[in-house]
Amino acid sequence: MSQWPIPKPMQAALNAARTAGDAGEVPVGAALVKDGEVIAVAGNATRTPPDPTGHAEMRVLRAGAEALGQDRLTGCDLYVTLEPCVMCAGAISHARIARLYYGASDPKGGGVEHGSRVFEQEQCMHKPEVYTGMGEEEAARLLRDFFKARR
Amino acid sequence: MSQWPIPKPMQAALNAARTAGDAGEVPVGAALVKDGEVIAVAGNATRTPPDPTGHAEMRVLRAGAEALGQDRLTGCDLYVTLEPCVMCAGAISHARIARLYYGASDPKGGGVEHGSRVFEQEQCMHKPEVYTGMGEEEAARLLRDFFKARR
Repeated sequence: MSQWPIPKPMQAALNAARTAGDAGEVPVGAALVKDGEVIAVAGNATRTPPDPTGHAEMRVLRAGAEALGQDRLTGCDLYVTLEPCVMCAGAISHARIARLYYGASDPKGGGVEHGSRVFEQEQCMHKPEVYTGMGEEEAARLLRDFFKARR
Repeated sequence: MSQWPIPKPMQAALNAARTAGDAGEVPVGAALVKDGEVIAVAGNATRTPPDPTGHAEMRVLRAGAEALGQDRLTGCDLYVTLEPCVMCAGAISHARIARLYYGASDPKGGGVEHGSRVFEQEQCMHKPEVYTGMGEEEAARLLRDFFKARR
């Protein structure tokens, strides 16, 4: 059990995950922070509108780039409820995210501490600092409940 | 030297790469094919509008999903001028692309035959058939000329 309150950006990401799940999307959420302020929040949205790249991380990176008017989000931090997949880890690197915080590990689909281990490859031009486990109980519970209800 | 004419979808991808380069974007292009017809073509666009995820493959997958009204592009083939990076390889897998054709290899940034080797990981839920080398001379020349002019 967490011994400290979950920081606001991760709370925002968890809320976005919950909203995504209520809409029938896989309940994963993300929040982007610049200078201590949340500048974008998004949940997964691959079905409506149909977008195979519509993971929470991708959507929040795109929104952040649009908001800041630049494709490199240098100095920004990303909070995600689940370990990013290879697609999202690659995007996080392209976007020059400074710090990545994620909740639950994802042995089946993760690309950070599993499988491709994107940030450890020599092809990776930028590696964020990575912090794991923040809010993981709630993040994992949302996913478990979502898939249990659909079985 | 290629002994056969470059198929139309790869010609379209090369043209999109050229257009991207003329606009100051890294000259990479992609084309999406369904039932033998090109349904979307795109070049890299990470600067205008600013989008760290704006690689040619991502843009053509998103356009294809929108055109077909579904996030899974089952049965579709993707033609790209350059070996996809991890981000794009992940997206290609999520989109359930049937066949991937690419031109030039990318030892510095590729994620298919280099580094992460995305499709060979057990976390990869869908692996396309992969064909390489089609149009690679022209694809590589576009990139070489682009970076030479900027040095």
